[in-house]
Amino acid sequence: MTTLLQNINDEVFRTYIFWVAVLVVKMLAMSVLTGRQRFRKKVFANPEDIQPNKKGIAPRFDDPDVERVRRAHRNDLENILPFFAIGLLYMLTNPEPFIAINLFRAVAISRILHTIVYAVVVIPQPARGLSWFIAYGATAYMAVVTALFFL
Amino acid sequence: MTTLLQNINDEVFRTYIFWVAVLVVKMLAMSVLTGRQRFRKKVFANPEDIQPNKKGIAPRFDDPDVERVRRAHRNDLENILPFFAIGLLYMLTNPEPFIAINLFRAVAISRILHTIVYAVVVIPQPARGLSWFIAYGATAYMAVVTALFFL
Amino acid sequence: MTTLLQNINDEVFRTYIFWVAVLVVKMLAMSVLTGRQRFRKKVFANPEDIQPNKKGIAPRFDDPDVERVRRAHRNDLENILPFFAIGLLYMLTNPEPFIAINLFRAVAISRILHTIVYAVVVIPQPARGLSWFIAYGATAYMAVVTALFFL
Repeated sequence: MTTLLQNINDEVFRTYIFWVAVLVVKMLAMSVLTGRQRFRKKVFANPEDIQPNKKGIAPRFDDPDVERVRRAHRNDLENILPFFAIGLLYMLTNPEPFIAINLFRAVAISRILHTIVYAVVVIPQPARGLSWFIAYGATAYMAVVTALFFL
Repeated sequence: MTTLLQNINDEVFRTYIFWVAVLVVKMLAMSVLTGRQRFRKKVFANPEDIQPNKKGIAPRFDDPDVERVRRAHRNDLENILPFFAIGLLYMLTNPEPFIAINLFRAVAISRILHTIVYAVVVIPQPARGLSWFIAYGATAYMAVVTALFFL
Repeated sequence: MTTLLQNINDEVFRTYIFWVAVLVVKMLAMSVLTGRQRFRKKVFANPEDIQPNKKGIAPRFDDPDVERVRRAHRNDLENILPFFAIGLLYMLTNPEPFIAINLFRAVAISRILHTIVYAVVVIPQPARGLSWFIAYGATAYMAVVTALFFL
């Protein structure tokens, strides 16, 4: 039996759960954003998605608006999903609650901003780079602290 | 120390674990499906995957059968992996066991059907759209309930 | 209330946490590898990533070095993220600690090797195939054992 789970601070855990749930909603919303672009531009990836009476429409994979949302979505997979795992385990290192809570907030809010400036209203760099880096840095910090703690 | 983990109902938890394990097997099977198409069509993504004596074969990224399986696989990453996270945390909201168990079953079974109609036996729409939406809706419901509970 | 969490062996859990943290660092490093190739080859995916004074550079998606790192990264999403979920749940099946610890090590070390031979120093097959298969087989084993245990 492990006693490690007792390290989890209740307030930190609640903050983690809330922001993970918000980020799941945000990630699921990417499918809506993709679908909106697909129907607006009539760009589909599969022959069976095209209505039979729409002659002349073939699957396409090069629409810049559709692909932009898909890149933002893939960036979520690369950055948010590892955060879900390491955020949970980081809580077992007995972090200062103030630090842990604000790391979770920083990841979540910067990822929401990342989606907005990447796939909703395109804003010139460094908007996307910065919002990406805050979540990236916070996640990397948690991972390194956790790896060293359990070395 | 957190007492939140005591909220987890044993039967709900066992159902969650079983279906997550099944979905991991299903996701891993996508690599077998991709490999089967790659070898059948002789379509490879890397120069080092092509046997040196096979002159004239270059990496290709446009085979419709290979790319179809890869799209199904990516759709799994977008939908199943967030479910793994939110399914776990949703159990901490003290859900009615009957509801939680059937949400988990709905996600898992509809995702298995999604793979079948997308990448094994292609069936006209709305087969894929419906199977996608059941898992999507159930996951979104769990995420919204969890976010509101821990607000 | 569930008593399943008491099944978790402390030493196994610590090994799991350590290697998950290492693998998160490894996955985050893929973004650095991608960025390095993008800047070296001046290949960007978004118009806003290109400096305004660099006339003649348009977004490109076919650079072999950039796409190679992106394929390695995607392979991580397909294989490492499901391991994070099933590794955690597998510990609830009361596995022999020696076996569980070495499965975690096998997954983590083979995934690190996979990245090296795929995206850092390209080594002829079967280097990549073997490193991929060790993690794949270990993850599949954990998933099947877990599914059967909670059937």
